[in-house]
Amino acid sequence: MTDDTERHNAKMAKKKAARDKIMATKTEEKGLIVVHTGKGKGKSSAAFGMIFRCIAHGMPCAVVQFIKGGMETGERTLIQTHFADACPFYAMGEGFTWETQDKSRDMEMAAAAWEKAKELIKDERNRMVLLDEINIALRYGYLDIDEVVAFLKEKKPPMTHVVLTGRNAKEELLEIADLATEMELLKHPFRSGVKAQAGVEF
Amino acid sequence: MTDDTERHNAKMAKKKAARDKIMATKTEEKGLIVVHTGKGKGKSSAAFGMIFRCIAHGMPCAVVQFIKGGMETGERTLIQTHFADACPFYAMGEGFTWETQDKSRDMEMAAAAWEKAKELIKDERNRMVLLDEINIALRYGYLDIDEVVAFLKEKKPPMTHVVLTGRNAKEELLEIADLATEMELLKHPFRSGVKAQAGVEF
Repeated sequence: MTDDTERHNAKMAKKKAARDKIMATKTEEKGLIVVHTGKGKGKSSAAFGMIFRCIAHGMPCAVVQFIKGGMETGERTLIQTHFADACPFYAMGEGFTWETQDKSRDMEMAAAAWEKAKELIKDERNRMVLLDEINIALRYGYLDIDEVVAFLKEKKPPMTHVVLTGRNAKEELLEIADLATEMELLKHPFRSGVKAQAGVEF
Repeated sequence: MTDDTERHNAKMAKKKAARDKIMATKTEEKGLIVVHTGKGKGKSSAAFGMIFRCIAHGMPCAVVQFIKGGMETGERTLIQTHFADACPFYAMGEGFTWETQDKSRDMEMAAAAWEKAKELIKDERNRMVLLDEINIALRYGYLDIDEVVAFLKEKKPPMTHVVLTGRNAKEELLEIADLATEMELLKHPFRSGVKAQAGVEF
């Protein structure tokens, strides 16, 4: 081996030992409150990626879409056509809020979606429940953040993962989250005149 | 309607008009160079979310995993068991680099993965090619960033999306990206002793 290779291998061995030591202390299993927020892309698609992982592992799961229901998305099609039994999908929203311009209707929709979400979370057979774009409903005040936080803290079964997405996550929600990621926008193609495209945006 | 509702609806109508005006200027379609980087979660799962969108839309696509090949992941299982024809999956890596401690072997693996990646990208039937964790291979110098950038700029078919993931994306790659997202870690359950769990981490 060259000196460079030896140095590299020694460095990697040290990294592995350090990592193994850390990982040995991580022994607890619990249902997580996961939040994806920020202005960047990937909040919903990373959440759907987790749902697809659950489906692959045979873990029952479910999705409630709070806002995007009006839009046909690839994930929805794929889940509904291939995995409807493994992962029931409830599209409760009515497109983005600025498409509807009817606050009382939006509030009714959000309330119905939240009722369905509570029912799914309380059902302990579900190992993961995705509340897609719920942060938008919370931000506009369609749902009460205190009620949502209290429910997650008190009623969520200990082994159930709940994933909540959407920009502008409320501080109260981030406080109770176990895993929170901010998707930050570095570059976006809309800025150079490129339109939303299949596979990328929907 | 109450005053509050009227104000809300007027605000939303204004937002919709502004948004429609902006979206009308977005007319171009092109194959994007998409980068997911940062220390947060969701880089790979958001990329796999896009792959599942492509599969749902009937757009041929392919995945090359540069680093995680040694790990069994839910996405890989799901794609290989349900969508092997729609999306060939090449797991070329050998676990994380600190698992192998053999630089020359890692470099051979990375070179082979890059050859496969180039072949898949040049095949215009593929609408999206995911190069998962390629940033790790670039960071350790297993692949030459100048060669990767030159290939993407000169040889990528105009309508093909290429998605590149992994932390520590090279500046040269971010420069040519059309869409780049930094996944920033706000909170992580490992910090409080929780181990990696099915559905969430793999």
